[in-house]
Amino acid sequence: MSINIDKLLTLLQDALERDDFDAAIKIIEALRGPDQAVLFDELEEDEQKELLPKLKNEISADILEDLDDPEAVKLAESLPLETIIQIVDEMEPDEAADLLGDMSDEQSQALLTRLHDADEVRPLLLYPDESAGGLMTSEFLALHPLMTAGEATEALRAWNPDSEEIYYLFVADDEENLVGIIGLRVLILADPNSVIEKIMDRDVISVNASVDQEDCARTMAHYDLAAIPVVDESGLLIGIITHDDIVDVLEEEATEDVYRLSNLSDSELDPDSPIKEQLKGRLPWLYLNTLTALFGAWVISNYEHIIAQAAVLALFQSVVAGQGGNTASQNIAMAVRTLATEHVGARAQRRIIIRQFFMGILLGVAVGSVVALGVYLWRGNIYLSFVLGLALVANLSFGSMIGVLIPLGLEKIGVDPALASSVLVTAATDSLGFFIFLSLAAHFLQEIQ
Amino acid sequence: MSINIDKLLTLLQDALERDDFDAAIKIIEALRGPDQAVLFDELEEDEQKELLPKLKNEISADILEDLDDPEAVKLAESLPLETIIQIVDEMEPDEAADLLGDMSDEQSQALLTRLHDADEVRPLLLYPDESAGGLMTSEFLALHPLMTAGEATEALRAWNPDSEEIYYLFVADDEENLVGIIGLRVLILADPNSVIEKIMDRDVISVNASVDQEDCARTMAHYDLAAIPVVDESGLLIGIITHDDIVDVLEEEATEDVYRLSNLSDSELDPDSPIKEQLKGRLPWLYLNTLTALFGAWVISNYEHIIAQAAVLALFQSVVAGQGGNTASQNIAMAVRTLATEHVGARAQRRIIIRQFFMGILLGVAVGSVVALGVYLWRGNIYLSFVLGLALVANLSFGSMIGVLIPLGLEKIGVDPALASSVLVTAATDSLGFFIFLSLAAHFLQEIQ
Repeated sequence: MSINIDKLLTLLQDALERDDFDAAIKIIEALRGPDQAVLFDELEEDEQKELLPKLKNEISADILEDLDDPEAVKLAESLPLETIIQIVDEMEPDEAADLLGDMSDEQSQALLTRLHDADEVRPLLLYPDESAGGLMTSEFLALHPLMTAGEATEALRAWNPDSEEIYYLFVADDEENLVGIIGLRVLILADPNSVIEKIMDRDVISVNASVDQEDCARTMAHYDLAAIPVVDESGLLIGIITHDDIVDVLEEEATEDVYRLSNLSDSELDPDSPIKEQLKGRLPWLYLNTLTALFGAWVISNYEHIIAQAAVLALFQSVVAGQGGNTASQNIAMAVRTLATEHVGARAQRRIIIRQFFMGILLGVAVGSVVALGVYLWRGNIYLSFVLGLALVANLSFGSMIGVLIPLGLEKIGVDPALASSVLVTAATDSLGFFIFLSLAAHFLQEIQ
Repeated sequence: MSINIDKLLTLLQDALERDDFDAAIKIIEALRGPDQAVLFDELEEDEQKELLPKLKNEISADILEDLDDPEAVKLAESLPLETIIQIVDEMEPDEAADLLGDMSDEQSQALLTRLHDADEVRPLLLYPDESAGGLMTSEFLALHPLMTAGEATEALRAWNPDSEEIYYLFVADDEENLVGIIGLRVLILADPNSVIEKIMDRDVISVNASVDQEDCARTMAHYDLAAIPVVDESGLLIGIITHDDIVDVLEEEATEDVYRLSNLSDSELDPDSPIKEQLKGRLPWLYLNTLTALFGAWVISNYEHIIAQAAVLALFQSVVAGQGGNTASQNIAMAVRTLATEHVGARAQRRIIIRQFFMGILLGVAVGSVVALGVYLWRGNIYLSFVLGLALVANLSFGSMIGVLIPLGLEKIGVDPALASSVLVTAATDSLGFFIFLSLAAHFLQEIQ
């Protein structure tokens, strides 16, 4: 973004403070749609409520479409019904449905009875937000296979949709079954008298409306599609999804991966989210991690008498536990992203498991030997160094294995590998790290003291 | 992907074992391009080398385009020059340039002197892989502003590019300066006699060839563009980038975020990468983490005499350190993804810092009080519980603050916040966690023993 948001924001807020709405509107209107939303998003809530009804309805609609869902809902619910009806009528049907789906039942019913395009919006409300049906728009043009190219061009002229970007047209038969696809370039270059059926491509890739949005986005990305038709259970064409939606979905899913690996369950959180929502998304995972940490403390408690005799052990137990965890985290990260973006066949899985077994030993020897040497130089006790080095080899080997086995296993049983891998693996590498180190040390207690 | 890769792979490998290349080719040709690559990717290296030259050149080209870069290079380098020339000639210029850029200088020179499309490929070699110039293709059609719509349609007909998907056409003046853009829909619906200049959109969003690929992808995603023109320093139109490229870039960048947060520096690694590359990408970070862990051990060593008197402290020091780290990780994840996907203004930053200050205290009290209670029930020592609870409040508050301050600070000085946040923050929460807990405990040593 090449615009200077901070500077424009100052200008805009100054104008609003002076109640100079003409100036404020001019600042907004000079920007491109997505930038209008970015700037608007920076305003205080009361400034937003004041400004939105004063903008042109198309602009307000674009802004509401681009705001984060919770913010858009909050803002929409705070406006008078008359105002919000006019704005929502200008929104694209899929965006309008998303907004209505998140509003209170009462408000969304009130809106639906008054909207001009209610018939386009209502069917979209049937599908969950996170499905292909929740992503699609009902604003599409379906051609008939027996039309001519010239008639198709006329149909395109008559259609004149809100959204300006069209990449392909879809072809449906008398029963509305999807039977073909035709790119605009083919249509331009075709003889106006040629029949659509003859020039269309019959190999159409479509998704079912109930398919998860991530699978849908992966299909579009895999086949490099700019748009994909959505069909219902019986193969009827009911909507389309365009490339800009899949970028949003893939970003959302990537954020979800990052969050889940960092023990955050709610992918809509950001550092600026309300305290209550952050507590809800963060605290359960912190408690779960605390529980596993206390289990680690219990493991150590079995060796309390040994630590009492050789307090030096307390210095290094966390090094063993922590480096096992770090090794495992590297494997989890690789496994989670690879499973998310590629096909991992049975043969590849076996190869991965064997490779990570050797990786673990190598990393364990590499880290263990350096630590053993360093700690020998520091503390001058060869037994302590030996126990520490050996424990690191064992725990890094274990961490490496479990760091691929748990994500692969979770994927196999249909659980998102990003979701639970991190907690499970840390619990295992911590507890096992403490156990290996302290039980080995117990054998050499006389020498380590 | 609805195809059954594992089953097809067995069929394909059986055919190859019988030297029945006709059957093998049929299996490949029955699939869509991207699926051909997925299946091919599962073959053993020697099978790949045997099969590729026997496929049609267009198919081999598509497969090479879809393979991961290192694999494609390895395969290309292993084939006879004659074979690889024919295949590369069928590749899209940007993909051919990527491949040549990664091959040995000797081989890429040999190829360049023999390629038909060398003139299209050579200019693309000037730009780094990770820039807009490295992403663009030189295969585009530029219209002249004084052409008519009819002439533009004729130009489109005469062009007939390798890639079938065209979304917009770009308009350049006599000096090849980019002056406008026109969607195919507008062209279809225009009177054939109307002049392009009159119907084109003059508000063109373009990127400079030297711009980083992530910034370029973000611009396209922000403005929902299906394609973006690339210009050089003087504004000359030199290429275009299409939506499928930006999906790949955003996926790559998301993977990079996940990897960097998990201490992996090479975003091309996967669990199946060669041992040597994994060691190179993993070991330096493990050593760095080990170093910070040993610093933590040194912090503890200052309290060794206290632990010798109250070994119970060794049980809980890691709980304080670990939960501070977990709290900070949550903040880092939120900050990194928010900075990657949104504009965070100065005002928002201040709000975030204040909010996370309070969040830290709240989370600290929530976790600290529960742990204090639990440990009191377990060990029955109120002083130990008090010290532990207080240390948790302090370390979680600290973790929460540093978990936003470090990413925001790194972003400000132009360092990727995902890169170093994790190591820096863990080092801080570990060391401070040990220090707070053990130094507090030192004050109550008589009571805790």
